Amino acid sequence: MEFTRRDLFKRSAVVVIGGSITGAASTLDDPLPSWNDGAAKKAILDFVQATTDRTSPRFVREPERIATFDQDGTLWVEHPMYSQVVYCLNRVPAVVKAKPELAGAEPFKTVLSGNEEAIAKLSMPDLYKIIGAALSGMSVEQFESEVKNWLENARDPRWRKRYTDLIYQPMIEVLTYMRSKGYKTYIVTGGGQDFVRVYSEKTYGIPPEQVVGTAGGTTFAYDSSGKPYLTKDPRLLLNDDKAGKPEGIHLMIGRRPYAAFGNSVGDQQMLEYTMAGDGERLAMLVFHDDADREYAYGPAQGLPDSKVGTFTQALYNQAKVNGWTVISMKNDWKRVID
Amino acid sequence: MEFTRRDLFKRSAVVVIGGSITGAASTLDDPLPSWNDGAAKKAILDFVQATTDRTSPRFVREPERIATFDQDGTLWVEHPMYSQVVYCLNRVPAVVKAKPELAGAEPFKTVLSGNEEAIAKLSMPDLYKIIGAALSGMSVEQFESEVKNWLENARDPRWRKRYTDLIYQPMIEVLTYMRSKGYKTYIVTGGGQDFVRVYSEKTYGIPPEQVVGTAGGTTFAYDSSGKPYLTKDPRLLLNDDKAGKPEGIHLMIGRRPYAAFGNSVGDQQMLEYTMAGDGERLAMLVFHDDADREYAYGPAQGLPDSKVGTFTQALYNQAKVNGWTVISMKNDWKRVID
Repeated sequence: MEFTRRDLFKRSAVVVIGGSITGAASTLDDPLPSWNDGAAKKAILDFVQATTDRTSPRFVREPERIATFDQDGTLWVEHPMYSQVVYCLNRVPAVVKAKPELAGAEPFKTVLSGNEEAIAKLSMPDLYKIIGAALSGMSVEQFESEVKNWLENARDPRWRKRYTDLIYQPMIEVLTYMRSKGYKTYIVTGGGQDFVRVYSEKTYGIPPEQVVGTAGGTTFAYDSSGKPYLTKDPRLLLNDDKAGKPEGIHLMIGRRPYAAFGNSVGDQQMLEYTMAGDGERLAMLVFHDDADREYAYGPAQGLPDSKVGTFTQALYNQAKVNGWTVISMKNDWKRVID
Repeated sequence: MEFTRRDLFKRSAVVVIGGSITGAASTLDDPLPSWNDGAAKKAILDFVQATTDRTSPRFVREPERIATFDQDGTLWVEHPMYSQVVYCLNRVPAVVKAKPELAGAEPFKTVLSGNEEAIAKLSMPDLYKIIGAALSGMSVEQFESEVKNWLENARDPRWRKRYTDLIYQPMIEVLTYMRSKGYKTYIVTGGGQDFVRVYSEKTYGIPPEQVVGTAGGTTFAYDSSGKPYLTKDPRLLLNDDKAGKPEGIHLMIGRRPYAAFGNSVGDQQMLEYTMAGDGERLAMLVFHDDADREYAYGPAQGLPDSKVGTFTQALYNQAKVNGWTVISMKNDWKRVID
C-alpha cells in the first residue's frame, strides 16, 4: 500500500494532537530531512517518483529496481585513510608474530617502525601485500569475528568515534527512502567484500548478499574432526574498482542498476554503465567540499589528488556534460555525521 | 500476517459452501499438495515450522533464512543431457560459420557430423571447449536474447515440451512455500550463471541476483559511439560444482544456508557446509528412481553412472549416516512434470 497525499495529511494531523508538529510533519512529508532543498535533493525525489509511479511512462517494475552505492567517501568517511587499510595495518604485529621472517621485509618493516609519515607514503601495491598477508589462511568465521572485534574497539583519531559511526546521515536517508519505494540497495565497493559484509546490515540496513566488493577466493576443506570449513586464500577473484565495478555488478547482481552513487574515478564506469540503460536512470557523485564538517579534497578545491577517493577535474567535467548530479556536502547536506 | 489453525478452518468452511471441499481444503491446509505424506514431506514441514515459529528454540530470524537449490536434476530434468549443453551444441554451426577454421577441428567436427552416438561420448573437457567457443565475445545482452530465443523454440525430444516446462511441480511448491515463510530461495548450480538467469525469474520466481552458477568473466568496453557495454570472456571465475558450491555461496551470498537441496555428488559439499552450521538445518537429495514418469539413474538402481547427475552409492550411504533426507521421486511425489 502506498500513502496518498490525503493519508499523509490525516496522519500528520493525528500526530499533532499528541506531539510536536514539526517533527511529525517533516518526517512524514519529507523522506530526506537532512538534505537542503536544491538540485541534488530534487534529482533523487524526481527519479524515485518517476520510476515508482504506475502511471508514469518511466515506471520500473519492482524486481528491477536496483540502486548501487559506493561505500568509501559515498556512505562513510574515507579520509585520510580507508578504514580497512587501518585495520590491516593494525593487524601487522599479529601477522609478523605468526611469520617472524616478515619483520625485516618491506613493507612490514615500515609499518612496524611506527613512522607515520613513511606509512602514509606506502604505495597501493604495498598495501595490497599487507592486506594479502593479513587475511590469507584465516577461516571466514575467524575473519568475521576479528573484524567485528576491531570495529568495536578502534576509534577514528579526529572524531574519536567508531568507524561505523562515521556514516553520512543524508545518505542513510537515501538508502531508507529508496528501500521504502521497493528499491534493492546494494553496496558496490572497491573495499573488501568480506570486510564490509561484517557490518553492512547493522550499519546500513544492507544484508551481506547485497554487498559487492573486491573479493578473494576461499578454499573448502575439512578439519581433523571431518567438519567442513572455508579459509580465505590469496587468489583475487574480483577487483571491484573502475571497470571492475560494472563487471562485479554483472557477476553478483546480473541486472543493470537504475541508480548509482559514487564519489571518485573508481565509480566512473559504474555510473556510465548505469546511465547507458534505457528509461529513467540516476547518477550522483558526492563531492567532498566541506573541510569544517568533514574534509575537502580533490583538485576542484585546488588540493592535490590523494591516494583515496580521487575526484578529478575530468570526472567533474564528465558529470556536467553527462547530466550526472554532483552533491555538494557543504551546500546540499544539513548534517553530515551525527 | 500468519494464518492460525482456526483461520484455516474458518476459511475452508467458507469455501466449502460455494465449492469443492477437497480442492479448497488441500490448497489452504497443505502447502505441498503434490507431495505424498511421508518422511520427506514431513522433514520440510517440520524444518520450516521449527525455524519460523518465534516461540521455537530453533527460530531463525528472517534475514538469515537462506535456502539453496541445485538446478539440474533437482528443479528440472537433466537427463539425458543438460539443456545448456544442448544449447551449446545447437550453437556450433553458428560458431563455425563465424570461425570456419574450427570446422575441421575436434570436438566441433564431431558435433557437425550429427553422429548422435559420437556426440554423446564427448568428454566434459570437450563440452567445455564448445561452451567457451559458443559464448565468448558476445555482449551480455546478445547472449541473453540468444538464450531466450533458443528456449522459446527448442523442445525436449521425449516430452516435446520447452525445457523450461520440464520443472518438477513438487519442488516449485517447496520454493513457493519457503518464500512465503520468509526464506530467500537461491539456485546454486554447476550450470552457467548467465544462462540460468535468463529464465529463473519466470520459471522459478527466483530473480537473477539469487542465481549462483558457474561464471566466466566479462570485459567492460566502449563501442564506437562511446557507449559502454560488457562482453563475455573465457576466464573462469567460479566453477560452481562440488567444493565450488560452498565457495560460490560464500562469494555470492556471504551467509551459510539453513536448507540445501541437491541430487548428485556435485551437491555433496554444499549439503555438508549447510549442515555444519548451528541450529536447525535441512539437507535433502532428490533421487531419480521413477523411470515411468521421469528417469531412473545412478548405481542405486543398478544403472551405470551417467555423465550427468551422479548419485553414487557412497552419497546415498553418506545421506543415511548424516541424517540427510532422500526424496524418492517415485514414492514421495504425486506429480512430477505437469
